[in-house]
Amino acid sequence: MLATAEYQVRVFIEDTDASGVVYHANYLRFMERARTEMMRSLGIEQSATFEHEVAFVVHSAQMRFLRGARLDDLLRIETAVDNVRAASLVFHQVVRLRSGEPACEAQVRVACVHLKTHRARRIPTELMALMGATKQLPSG
Amino acid sequence: MLATAEYQVRVFIEDTDASGVVYHANYLRFMERARTEMMRSLGIEQSATFEHEVAFVVHSAQMRFLRGARLDDLLRIETAVDNVRAASLVFHQVVRLRSGEPACEAQVRVACVHLKTHRARRIPTELMALMGATKQLPSG
Amino acid sequence: MLATAEYQVRVFIEDTDASGVVYHANYLRFMERARTEMMRSLGIEQSATFEHEVAFVVHSAQMRFLRGARLDDLLRIETAVDNVRAASLVFHQVVRLRSGEPACEAQVRVACVHLKTHRARRIPTELMALMGATKQLPSG
Amino acid sequence: MLATAEYQVRVFIEDTDASGVVYHANYLRFMERARTEMMRSLGIEQSATFEHEVAFVVHSAQMRFLRGARLDDLLRIETAVDNVRAASLVFHQVVRLRSGEPACEAQVRVACVHLKTHRARRIPTELMALMGATKQLPSG
Repeated sequence: MLATAEYQVRVFIEDTDASGVVYHANYLRFMERARTEMMRSLGIEQSATFEHEVAFVVHSAQMRFLRGARLDDLLRIETAVDNVRAASLVFHQVVRLRSGEPACEAQVRVACVHLKTHRARRIPTELMALMGATKQLPSG
Repeated sequence: MLATAEYQVRVFIEDTDASGVVYHANYLRFMERARTEMMRSLGIEQSATFEHEVAFVVHSAQMRFLRGARLDDLLRIETAVDNVRAASLVFHQVVRLRSGEPACEAQVRVACVHLKTHRARRIPTELMALMGATKQLPSG
Repeated sequence: MLATAEYQVRVFIEDTDASGVVYHANYLRFMERARTEMMRSLGIEQSATFEHEVAFVVHSAQMRFLRGARLDDLLRIETAVDNVRAASLVFHQVVRLRSGEPACEAQVRVACVHLKTHRARRIPTELMALMGATKQLPSG
Repeated sequence: MLATAEYQVRVFIEDTDASGVVYHANYLRFMERARTEMMRSLGIEQSATFEHEVAFVVHSAQMRFLRGARLDDLLRIETAVDNVRAASLVFHQVVRLRSGEPACEAQVRVACVHLKTHRARRIPTELMALMGATKQLPSG
């Protein structure tokens, strides 16, 4: 089965803008924090992948901004690995207000690249194994 | 004809991350700067719309991250209004490296809302006129 | 006695820059998070003070950047109220690496202002009481 | 004579917070942009110094936040090199509203370090020369 995780983010004044709600680009930051903590809980630290000259970078994102989160809100981010390929992963993420209503929803494709050149490369097998994702790979 | 515009953004150290390139969420910021300057050049200031209790908020975005921009790069952002509806606009934006290659490409739907309630509302006619967009509206 | 508190901040990729360490301005954000959580633990929520047309804003800061925190570091922020006046507070804050070594140290004066006008005003007595700070005020 | 420069920054919605003004930590970003452009105008690009394994990092800052800048404001940043030592520089910077009133004022000490180790090192002589600062150095 593919990994899922929950992560909480508190909305601080730095996250809001003059319209009174969370600045839209910050949801991308919150969602990356959630993916990073999910990876960490699986034993994968970003600084360690950097040492192996491997980086995971966001390749594409489809985002919908549904409700404005406000100062002091405690957001809950649901993260699920939707799909795993040889060199990329797709995450489905929902940022929820305390009421349970979604503030932001996204599909995010993360690609595995060489740290220096930023060229695509296969996800190292040991990382694949940690994500419990080996069965999802095409056999061919 | 619908509006188009070009805008330049310098990459500062604050925009980059430890992987050596621009942090992905920052392209959303750059693209909002470009839309804001485009609107300003058409005579529409965000602070003025706020005074009319009107805000333009990002409703959804489809983003592709193609190449990592680096420190000191001078980016060129092409912005085009793709589509205008009664209560929202679609922008197509490309962030280009100095070489002309795209770093990031996006379709961004911006909705018109009441500033306080964040509920959808029609774009005020005078703003529509400024965007040269009246012909694009459905006649019905 | 004046309030003290500890708060932890994880360093995410968004917090770093191309030199490989935390971007210096982000320590001001981390320190504000720590002060906000300290206030929250005392029963003072920023969004609630906004409803009373009161805001706490940073008036001045003396910062020393001592060591660069890195990706994945778990920082510990020590916050102490150093001094309380009628319309402002001074915090002393130290951001420590896991080793205990300081990454950043600061004295931050936070002023109480009217939310709309940003003019100085006395800290409301009920907030003073919550900060256990009544004894620190000059008797005159 | 020591170098001085002026730089303009437009306030975008990303720079503001829910209290309606520029988020305080962002002045540190604006001031770094101004210093970077000043250095660039003197022929010193940050990415080039990185290639020489040299980085300029903020060592300490004394900041005063005087007035809140608002959305759409066009800020003028005055930057002056106040003092040059063998391994560090002090800048005095004022961020002004269009009215000329100061929004933020700071003294910022920038240290020259080895990029990898972040240990202090002498400012390379060719950079010193570019800053027109050779006369300011102690003769001993």
